[in-house]
Amino acid sequence: MLTPEYGAHIVTTAIRSSALVAGARRLVPLPGPFAMRHGGVLRSAQIACETWGRLATDGGNVLLLFTGLSPSAHAAASPTDPTPGWWEEMVGPGKPLDTHHFYVVCVNSLGSCFGSTGPASINPDTGKPYALTFPTLTVEDIAAAARDALSVLGVRHVRVAMGASLGGMSALAYALMFPGEVEVLVSISSATHSEPFAIAIRSLQRELIRADRAWKGGNYQSADGPREGMRLARKLGMISYRSAREWMERFGRERAGDSATQPFAAEFEVESYLESRARTFVGGFDANSYLYLSRAMDLFDVAEHGGTVEKAFSRLQLKKVQVVGVETDILFPLHQQQALTDALRHAGVETRYVPLPSKQGHDSFLVDMDRFRPTIGDFLATL
Amino acid sequence: MLTPEYGAHIVTTAIRSSALVAGARRLVPLPGPFAMRHGGVLRSAQIACETWGRLATDGGNVLLLFTGLSPSAHAAASPTDPTPGWWEEMVGPGKPLDTHHFYVVCVNSLGSCFGSTGPASINPDTGKPYALTFPTLTVEDIAAAARDALSVLGVRHVRVAMGASLGGMSALAYALMFPGEVEVLVSISSATHSEPFAIAIRSLQRELIRADRAWKGGNYQSADGPREGMRLARKLGMISYRSAREWMERFGRERAGDSATQPFAAEFEVESYLESRARTFVGGFDANSYLYLSRAMDLFDVAEHGGTVEKAFSRLQLKKVQVVGVETDILFPLHQQQALTDALRHAGVETRYVPLPSKQGHDSFLVDMDRFRPTIGDFLATL
Repeated sequence: MLTPEYGAHIVTTAIRSSALVAGARRLVPLPGPFAMRHGGVLRSAQIACETWGRLATDGGNVLLLFTGLSPSAHAAASPTDPTPGWWEEMVGPGKPLDTHHFYVVCVNSLGSCFGSTGPASINPDTGKPYALTFPTLTVEDIAAAARDALSVLGVRHVRVAMGASLGGMSALAYALMFPGEVEVLVSISSATHSEPFAIAIRSLQRELIRADRAWKGGNYQSADGPREGMRLARKLGMISYRSAREWMERFGRERAGDSATQPFAAEFEVESYLESRARTFVGGFDANSYLYLSRAMDLFDVAEHGGTVEKAFSRLQLKKVQVVGVETDILFPLHQQQALTDALRHAGVETRYVPLPSKQGHDSFLVDMDRFRPTIGDFLATL
Repeated sequence: MLTPEYGAHIVTTAIRSSALVAGARRLVPLPGPFAMRHGGVLRSAQIACETWGRLATDGGNVLLLFTGLSPSAHAAASPTDPTPGWWEEMVGPGKPLDTHHFYVVCVNSLGSCFGSTGPASINPDTGKPYALTFPTLTVEDIAAAARDALSVLGVRHVRVAMGASLGGMSALAYALMFPGEVEVLVSISSATHSEPFAIAIRSLQRELIRADRAWKGGNYQSADGPREGMRLARKLGMISYRSAREWMERFGRERAGDSATQPFAAEFEVESYLESRARTFVGGFDANSYLYLSRAMDLFDVAEHGGTVEKAFSRLQLKKVQVVGVETDILFPLHQQQALTDALRHAGVETRYVPLPSKQGHDSFLVDMDRFRPTIGDFLATL
């Protein structure tokens, strides 16, 4: 068993996948074969995580942070890995996720490609990457694998489970599946299920990846892969992650600086922006991981845990919840935040609902820090 | 010169492009070389149109109907072509566009592929399809070509110019460019310009077409062409044309009837719906036409006609305008309808503004006929 400690500690596990051990990541081997919700077993899986702060002697200060679809466990810098993390402004001493107070554990989702076992990992039974032989991934698997990893870290009790987008679904699944083990939930721009509009966008993103010949039915070499498909999928992602209002204020009808060399190339600045954002993403994320995680979001449905959301939520033993949503979010719109809040309150859970007027859409939690810092920080300070 | 008459009349023009003459379409040769707004000349162009009703002896009853991006001039059935048109419920005797009263002329946009000259037409100078040698197309070119076609038909004066989406832009361009020649404008789910969100979606649609190897830089054989790219672009189109609310009510989380045979194939009914809608579209529309017309929508900006929208609109000589928008439209959102209305009123034009609560998004004018019939019909009846 590993000893939780301040900062980060690298665990090398020779029998694990080809994932490199780097930075402040811990690669935590799950204690036994991991059975997936929709069938299939991972014989030896691992979860990458990073921690900040110190575990209290009574173990009562764990803040479990799940990520959205694409980030790694590197939420913030630490002495071991000083590179800025994906939620740098939120995690650290004196920050909203205050590491003077909380022992923050951020996990890379099962199925992802930043150290946790996923489609790009080597299947120990074949010596080859799983690719599409990786079992169907669900949000519940992400939650259960995180719990197994926590147990290896000596954590039995979660004071706060938190996440945005897919991360919010994972945190909610955790609270549903292990009701006595979580006290507080913070759900950001997430929902009890995906609506058809969000499913349609993600389905098309997956199709763009699969339509790229370089995908090769999932059997690409990790070095190349469907770069064009990923680039196009990321553009569609950006269109769904931000908002029309933000882009109108930001770009208006500004023309692209780089004059078009190809026919039908970018005429407007918004097109150049999407292109540069998409190019940055390509190569940094495994395409099959993207497919698996994206589908997991579509499949998630709280109602599966009892027949209805109401019945599912009747099992919750949460003491307190904060539901944060954003007016301009078209993937997890505000009416879903209100519905989640209503269902929690109906189940008798004390729930604080914060609809924010941020203009950056679904991505606001990564960008509109002036709103998110106090929203999250003030709530956590009441605990 | 052609004699306008009831029903439809086919004009065969031996010197024109390879477009087939079929149904009730008239193929109207433009009177001379057609100079395009951004440069380039079409030496011999034609516009396909259909007419319904009878031209009044004083010529004062012409209703010029422009189409959205993809329809042909066949807006409604006629004795010559009894197949249902794209606005069947709207055009005919006793219908909102009442052919007892109006002489309705629907034009297939310049650049399209249903009889009007476009990228798929044969360039008379080379004997080959224009493909990407077709000059840059603008909404203003569509309007000017329609006017030339009307002049051939003996029409000098437009009582009502009308259109939805791209058609609304074309009608507005007509009123701006030929101010003394139009009395009334009906703009449906259109705008003075495209915002970055709409540009981003259309830009990605065009990229999906161009990314298909079968596009071959625009030089595909008309029989095949980029079918995959068109299918994917159409899916993205459908996502932007409808609304999240409609799909939630219509599909919810209903599973796809056809069980998935391919990995990551449709799990949900909304995915099957998009697939079937996209497949229907493919093969029915020329890919290069799509690129040209789509870009024309991005490029349109009323402010180019005078420096600002205000200055541009100061030239209008419209007597009356009806602006119709839809709450759930994400491509031409309601705030753009309000802005168009405000600008028209500021210019002293009597403007009736009708924001509709239709749930079918941008496509509502094609689907929510119970709202659109009275909205359009009542307004036209006041004329």
